[in-house]
Amino acid sequence: MTHDHSSCCGGHGHSHGHAHHHDHNHAPHAGPAEAHADLSGAPEAPILVEVTRGGMVESVHRGRACIVDAGGRVLARWGDIESPVYPRSAIKSLQAIPLVETGALDAFGLGDAELALACSSHNGETAHTSLAESWLARVGLSVADYECGEQVPYDPGTAEDMVRAGEAPTAFHNNCSGKHAGFLTTARHKGEPTKGYVRRDHPVQQRILGVMEQMTGTDLSNAPWGIDGCSIPTFGIPLGNIALAMARIADPSDLPDARAEAVTRIAKAWAAHPYLIGGRDTFDTAMMEAADGLVLTKVGAEGVGCALLPGQGIGIALKIEDGTSRAREVAMAALIRATRTLSDVHWSRAAALLRTPIASRRGAEVGEIRTAAGWPGL
Amino acid sequence: MTHDHSSCCGGHGHSHGHAHHHDHNHAPHAGPAEAHADLSGAPEAPILVEVTRGGMVESVHRGRACIVDAGGRVLARWGDIESPVYPRSAIKSLQAIPLVETGALDAFGLGDAELALACSSHNGETAHTSLAESWLARVGLSVADYECGEQVPYDPGTAEDMVRAGEAPTAFHNNCSGKHAGFLTTARHKGEPTKGYVRRDHPVQQRILGVMEQMTGTDLSNAPWGIDGCSIPTFGIPLGNIALAMARIADPSDLPDARAEAVTRIAKAWAAHPYLIGGRDTFDTAMMEAADGLVLTKVGAEGVGCALLPGQGIGIALKIEDGTSRAREVAMAALIRATRTLSDVHWSRAAALLRTPIASRRGAEVGEIRTAAGWPGL
Repeated sequence: MTHDHSSCCGGHGHSHGHAHHHDHNHAPHAGPAEAHADLSGAPEAPILVEVTRGGMVESVHRGRACIVDAGGRVLARWGDIESPVYPRSAIKSLQAIPLVETGALDAFGLGDAELALACSSHNGETAHTSLAESWLARVGLSVADYECGEQVPYDPGTAEDMVRAGEAPTAFHNNCSGKHAGFLTTARHKGEPTKGYVRRDHPVQQRILGVMEQMTGTDLSNAPWGIDGCSIPTFGIPLGNIALAMARIADPSDLPDARAEAVTRIAKAWAAHPYLIGGRDTFDTAMMEAADGLVLTKVGAEGVGCALLPGQGIGIALKIEDGTSRAREVAMAALIRATRTLSDVHWSRAAALLRTPIASRRGAEVGEIRTAAGWPGL
Repeated sequence: MTHDHSSCCGGHGHSHGHAHHHDHNHAPHAGPAEAHADLSGAPEAPILVEVTRGGMVESVHRGRACIVDAGGRVLARWGDIESPVYPRSAIKSLQAIPLVETGALDAFGLGDAELALACSSHNGETAHTSLAESWLARVGLSVADYECGEQVPYDPGTAEDMVRAGEAPTAFHNNCSGKHAGFLTTARHKGEPTKGYVRRDHPVQQRILGVMEQMTGTDLSNAPWGIDGCSIPTFGIPLGNIALAMARIADPSDLPDARAEAVTRIAKAWAAHPYLIGGRDTFDTAMMEAADGLVLTKVGAEGVGCALLPGQGIGIALKIEDGTSRAREVAMAALIRATRTLSDVHWSRAAALLRTPIASRRGAEVGEIRTAAGWPGL
């Protein structure tokens, strides 16, 4: 990590340099009834990503991000990192801690593959669903015990195959089926009822709440919260504290021994099974396969992303203001690049993640999704 | 249209009223290496739409919009309406003008249904593709003459049926196949080569460029431009001028006779065939079916939307900064509502357009997409 301010934090007053202000003279004249509403008020979020088409920036994406170390030192930041963010699926690694700490994983003879699947938002490919299926069987449960709901697989090829075969999606195809298998396994191991394990007051969720508070360094008792797509609670946590929790996985030296051991094991499983974390054509799998284990990443819904650099004790958290995946992916790649952890060889494999071409329906390149001009560190 | 400033333009200094600023104390401490990049610089765009989950606004969408009359008077505006916007598919009604004005539509015995399809971004349902097919046959052309490219139908049910039947998508399923049928028909009628009709220098596109300049009141010779998804040029036009063109369709009294006649015919076809404009579960079809012809709407890619109120000579244009459809739909419904054109009966049919529930995968309502607090006129 290079702490070069002029490189990390340039771009002040940047005006985009595109044709945004062309042709003002022809706008309709403002009549006496003209009025101008200002409805702003969200946390400050600079433009991180721009979408071009031909000679113009067509759309932009604002976001907030930070890079922190395990001591809570903010090494770089973009926008407001104090306002709460729902981390959604980006912190499944934290939600997997009780699975290890309670001894449930070992008690059932489960291994790194299952632990990686617990941290995943997977594609619903056979590689993922068959592992979830054998896992549930091993703890004596079935698909009927899931409370995450059915989901059409994210992977379009798998989804099409199922339509062709007349197969309906099940809870195994839910991108969270590994995480929920972990919840069920922990409840089973502790002798708790599995029914209702998604509810905030269930011991499974209460344990996770405690883990989240410790790892993020926050008191969540009065935090805003909501229900995630897979029916479990998600808590609003300042973005900087989400990054802090990731940094503590990367550098667990200040954690209690049992927790340090658990997160080290989780990081090892996460790094060892990039395909289980996402799957075909997913950001996480592509980024981690390119990075040779130097970076761990995890996407979340509504434009949230987390990453950590195990060798450097650094955590990264990102929230795209508008919740879009296309911006999250390009911005997360750029944040990782800004840490200067990966070599040119790594980036030659992951170049497509830094810049997404936009094609016409005939396949001609007509634009791109890229970091905004003035982005630091590139 | 009520020109009530206090209602149309309230919301200044609005602070959202949600728990955005909860729990600041626990953020990581800013160390000496902290830095703060400001990468802003896009056209000013207030928050128009917010996405909630439980006790918090999770994501927000900024945008720019205006309501203007046919004289170019701005009746209401949100953000910068002078910077150029690619109107994409939202102005297919303008691109259909030469189809009528050249006499091509009548010469081939085509009617309102085909004219509506020329203005559509359709779902690729059989209702749409069969009409495009019979139309091309009538002008002596085939699917091979299309230069828009193949597309999987927008309608998920149709797409699934095709997968089940082992059918590959064709250019008829392209949401622009009606517009392109119009282009081909005009070229055929004028004795121009059909090959290359999508190119900027082809007479078909040159005619449209002239129409766009006249209807929007802009000189586009040096405008930024790019290639649309269907391979034709799209030009950057100030948002206010896009709205002006819509207002001129609504009130063509100042247009030359032939053009006034053409846009009147287009508006009539557009109003008569809401299903052809979009299809099942599309915003345009739902909004227009609810509105009994009092409002015509048309979505475009990257968060653009246009609408007009034929009875009131008013045009509306909208650009969501981040290009998302979910925000465009809620914002466009709110803009229409702000004009106070529709009755409670109309809105009772279209209530779902003003507020989109967000459900968990088990179907529980866990949040909503809604206009930002402080939105005027609601």
